[in-house]
Amino acid sequence: MADTRTQFLLTEDRIPTHWVNLVADLPGDPLPPLSPRTGQPAGPEDLTPIFPMGIIQQEVSAEPEIEIPEPVREAYKIWRPTPLHRTVALERALDTPAHIYFKYEGVSPAGSHKPNSAIAQAYENAQAGVKRLVTETGAGQWGSSLAFACAKFGLECEVYMVGSSYDQKPYRRSMMQTWGATVHRSPSDRTEAGRAQAGHPTGSLGIAISEAVEVAAGDPEANYALGSVLSHVCLHQTVIGQESIAQMELAGEEPDVVIGCVGGGSNFAGIAFPWLRRNLRHGATTRFVGMEPAACPTLTQGTYAYDFGDAVGLTPLMPMYTLGHDFVPPPVHAGGLRYHGDAPLLCAVVKAGLVEARAVRQNPTFEAALLFARTEGIIPAPESAHAIRGAVDEAEAAREAGEERVILFNLSGHGHFDMAAYDAYLSGTLEDPEFEQGAVDDALARLPEGVPSIA
Amino acid sequence: MADTRTQFLLTEDRIPTHWVNLVADLPGDPLPPLSPRTGQPAGPEDLTPIFPMGIIQQEVSAEPEIEIPEPVREAYKIWRPTPLHRTVALERALDTPAHIYFKYEGVSPAGSHKPNSAIAQAYENAQAGVKRLVTETGAGQWGSSLAFACAKFGLECEVYMVGSSYDQKPYRRSMMQTWGATVHRSPSDRTEAGRAQAGHPTGSLGIAISEAVEVAAGDPEANYALGSVLSHVCLHQTVIGQESIAQMELAGEEPDVVIGCVGGGSNFAGIAFPWLRRNLRHGATTRFVGMEPAACPTLTQGTYAYDFGDAVGLTPLMPMYTLGHDFVPPPVHAGGLRYHGDAPLLCAVVKAGLVEARAVRQNPTFEAALLFARTEGIIPAPESAHAIRGAVDEAEAAREAGEERVILFNLSGHGHFDMAAYDAYLSGTLEDPEFEQGAVDDALARLPEGVPSIA
Repeated sequence: MADTRTQFLLTEDRIPTHWVNLVADLPGDPLPPLSPRTGQPAGPEDLTPIFPMGIIQQEVSAEPEIEIPEPVREAYKIWRPTPLHRTVALERALDTPAHIYFKYEGVSPAGSHKPNSAIAQAYENAQAGVKRLVTETGAGQWGSSLAFACAKFGLECEVYMVGSSYDQKPYRRSMMQTWGATVHRSPSDRTEAGRAQAGHPTGSLGIAISEAVEVAAGDPEANYALGSVLSHVCLHQTVIGQESIAQMELAGEEPDVVIGCVGGGSNFAGIAFPWLRRNLRHGATTRFVGMEPAACPTLTQGTYAYDFGDAVGLTPLMPMYTLGHDFVPPPVHAGGLRYHGDAPLLCAVVKAGLVEARAVRQNPTFEAALLFARTEGIIPAPESAHAIRGAVDEAEAAREAGEERVILFNLSGHGHFDMAAYDAYLSGTLEDPEFEQGAVDDALARLPEGVPSIA
Repeated sequence: MADTRTQFLLTEDRIPTHWVNLVADLPGDPLPPLSPRTGQPAGPEDLTPIFPMGIIQQEVSAEPEIEIPEPVREAYKIWRPTPLHRTVALERALDTPAHIYFKYEGVSPAGSHKPNSAIAQAYENAQAGVKRLVTETGAGQWGSSLAFACAKFGLECEVYMVGSSYDQKPYRRSMMQTWGATVHRSPSDRTEAGRAQAGHPTGSLGIAISEAVEVAAGDPEANYALGSVLSHVCLHQTVIGQESIAQMELAGEEPDVVIGCVGGGSNFAGIAFPWLRRNLRHGATTRFVGMEPAACPTLTQGTYAYDFGDAVGLTPLMPMYTLGHDFVPPPVHAGGLRYHGDAPLLCAVVKAGLVEARAVRQNPTFEAALLFARTEGIIPAPESAHAIRGAVDEAEAAREAGEERVILFNLSGHGHFDMAAYDAYLSGTLEDPEFEQGAVDDALARLPEGVPSIA
């Protein structure tokens, strides 16, 4: 019963001073995004209607490190540095010689890693004199993070929330409203994109993105904000990995493998990129594993190609693994992982063989989540549970191999607003859908034409 | 927009090694609890059927400090030390010269201070060879904390949840089940106490306590656990105040006033008692303010008398401020503050004039909660919002007086499972009930007879 768990805490002066821009470490120039209008490399004119110059500069920067503005670091102090724990009780339950560590991002006010970027984006927009940020949200993690960040920097916030989530997750909506945001059920009658889909029973992220972009582009006082995929979002999340490096030093161990779940790729990039830089610069041999749902296996089953970021085709074309921009994944509870593509920067390192990807089913993922909750105390978000599943698999492999493997994973958020999923699992009624190959084939047949092949 | 908020973090080696037992600092012997059967001072035979000896020893100890068992300290490391923040953004919004600090207990897995005692109780029961803990829960904070603690120490956990909460807060129930607890809607058909109330539409804490005590007393392998009121629960919570003393030293300030919300009294005791000891021993002049709901104003409107801890009259008689053991407060959202009595140790220091109490209405409490969420980021539990209201009132008084007052309050938990209350406040439909004097008079007329008067 005695528990030798150890906790590795940093004091507030250890919040990183810079973000890590991995693009500087990769060979050659990155493939550029392409304008959806011209098929040519996208220029600032494709981005200035919806993003402030500070964010655009971060998006295209080739500098290896970008200084974190002091007001952003101050706001990070609401919850950063986040803790890093060793999971002695979980290790014992698995009877493994592996040492498992996790970085816990669920201590933020919104309950996940998302505020790391929301705060940075709200700050840059406020600096640029923008009055209002418009965004979409699915399950609500990003929308609530941006609502919180806007409250912090005195911006209005308008969120288009996917209809089915709006109906099923009223408390994420309440959370956004508590922070002062206005929340619309999408499709709404407020935009052309929404009106074109009037009567759509559930809505989709694709429609909600289109609504948010349309509103932001049409209002000179408003901008758009995206919670994953783009390089500046991955950049902002690298505070996670940098802190974890300092904390693993406190623990006196080096991870053999770093694991994160992958939806759009930002939390994975956040934990992995600072460690990956150590491999690239200093010859460290850490492995990296991105965990995705079998219902939406972008990295493991997708095609590497230029594709739109949204379902409707408004965004720049991005070089990435994709299941097709209008592929609709089955409705697993890890709503944050139901995205057809992935961050181009993450896709590039997967393509280069620097990061491995694995897909897992929903039921074994919740099995790992429950084991984690009962041993380590924290109830994980369904998204984050994919990383736990990956860590458990590695720990079991270490047991089979008789190896003292050191495993580090990112626990990107808590599951306080996902208890219905736990109810379903506990009652044995959790469905376990896989993707349908035919649906992916159909969607891939609709990839944009007239753009360079990159596969 | 620049935020000079400061955060004061401790590393894990600063988790306290001892609990503070304030009873040693109070003049004279404390008034003893009385046996409900004999009216004479309660002996161990009144407690051994439901508590292990380790807890009974803590309950009656006169030692000034009690060592925290090492496995309890290790389990505390899942979330302790908790952060202490200065609220620069809130101060600015209030335009006050006051400095406001808060200690944040919502980072625990169950989301409040309750695990500080649940872990200690589960450990002592596991050490004593007990197989199963039985308890009641209202809104679910205590039940989920005990479920978490039982999972940690390998005990079964059985929770009788007040029927109306069971129906309205299914996700607190899911949380308990995720940690492996069995949850019964109370009144149930599993106990005499429950069957006697069959058909009761909502249930009550009183009925649920009776069910849990009946089950625990009737099973030699089971014990009962209580989440507030008793001296050992207040004792366990003093880790809060001790950490806050170390953190205020880091901040270089001394609080002029320490504030907490009061339901059964344990979170208030937790923040206040270590500071109160400094007053008593070293002549410090910190003020203490307990904030209670106007719907259940035990300390401000109650009678100081011996009364039962539960509605049915099964528990020992305790010397405390009471509104009458069968008084049913109006249904405010701060379910954790709807208790007719208060911890005898807290009542003793209120009676001695060492602690002041104030009652506040529900709507101004949520007004303060919203201001706090929008400035400091954290969405507070409705209970904890009472402490915020108290801090805001002190800060406004400091502004009026032109004083640089230093205010410290305990933010005992987050509101992630209370968003329906925020919905009601935001939509302007939040009711604002006060207690009814007639109902209290009626309940006080039913105080137990034949026991010493202490008023």
